[in-house]
Amino acid sequence: MAADLSSGGGGRERILRAASRLFLSQGYAATSTRDIALAAGIRQPSLYHHFATKADILHAVALATVEPSLRKAEELAADEKLQPFDRLMALVDFDVRLLWESDRSSSAFALVAQGTVVEMDGPIDRFSELQWFYRSFIIGSSPGWGDLSGDGLVGVIFSMIEGVVFRRAYEEVDVDEVAQQTMAAVARLLTQPETRMKR
Amino acid sequence: MAADLSSGGGGRERILRAASRLFLSQGYAATSTRDIALAAGIRQPSLYHHFATKADILHAVALATVEPSLRKAEELAADEKLQPFDRLMALVDFDVRLLWESDRSSSAFALVAQGTVVEMDGPIDRFSELQWFYRSFIIGSSPGWGDLSGDGLVGVIFSMIEGVVFRRAYEEVDVDEVAQQTMAAVARLLTQPETRMKR
Repeated sequence: MAADLSSGGGGRERILRAASRLFLSQGYAATSTRDIALAAGIRQPSLYHHFATKADILHAVALATVEPSLRKAEELAADEKLQPFDRLMALVDFDVRLLWESDRSSSAFALVAQGTVVEMDGPIDRFSELQWFYRSFIIGSSPGWGDLSGDGLVGVIFSMIEGVVFRRAYEEVDVDEVAQQTMAAVARLLTQPETRMKR
Repeated sequence: MAADLSSGGGGRERILRAASRLFLSQGYAATSTRDIALAAGIRQPSLYHHFATKADILHAVALATVEPSLRKAEELAADEKLQPFDRLMALVDFDVRLLWESDRSSSAFALVAQGTVVEMDGPIDRFSELQWFYRSFIIGSSPGWGDLSGDGLVGVIFSMIEGVVFRRAYEEVDVDEVAQQTMAAVARLLTQPETRMKR
């Protein structure tokens, strides 16, 4: 499902990759569509064929971080063979890998931290949809218990997954380990002591 | 210990506040020391009295996110009445509130996500020191067990705390709740089922 993130070729894809890099290195405000066209090796009229404005490019960069995970969540929700907990683990695995591996994710997250993306409705609606799936898989797995349940449980799990971009900045660790560790932590947060004792 | 983050007045403080806002809104590269002096309401020669270069200002902005937590960690480590677990909880509480409440933290984190701060040794050394305290308090509380221990345990806890800046962007929730939820989650990740059953 994430093939479009890494696939090489098309003009649209080259524009998005160049724009991500420039937004990261010099900031959104300081980047012009001319800079983007130049970095993408594309003439400006071709760029305008794909995107009418710089804001449209930012929009597409932000969506590219969330769309693959959202499609994965929809696919998991539709698979009736899976229990909510299996869906949750598969989504955590997918999302952690996407956040870790995509340059675009650090760009989009830097922009979110800057408040740039928050002013746009489209991407934020899609992030909310993804959170809705997380919430549904989490609450379906465990209603929570003790001092951590419902929204609080969803919130700390969400922080732990998104926070992965910071681990990448500091630690030398590979993505398989990070995905395994994050899944193990989510499972531990959801599993009641009684249930665990039986295992 | 965090008083210097909010204290009003001095020129240095005004420069740091103005610089944080500008780095966030228009990016580091696009911000000049002239812009910073103007926004701080200070003449450029006065700015140069405090900071020789723009990089020195960025350095100070990044340190301001980590220094108060590091001082808190040192203070907790020196308090012999406390157990490692109490030290850890107090540090999580302090750090989550600092990340949530300081504008400067989103600025520094956006810069880390951009890779700007990672190229500087000073702040990254201080972040590593803070991680060292986290590690020592975590491992002192619990060696970990099952599929999550040692570095993996430290890593997921670190992600969960740093990831708080993203929750702030999306959720309407207050800092007391977030601090409580994060402490509860850390406790749950550390507590073995047997121990929990006895409570």
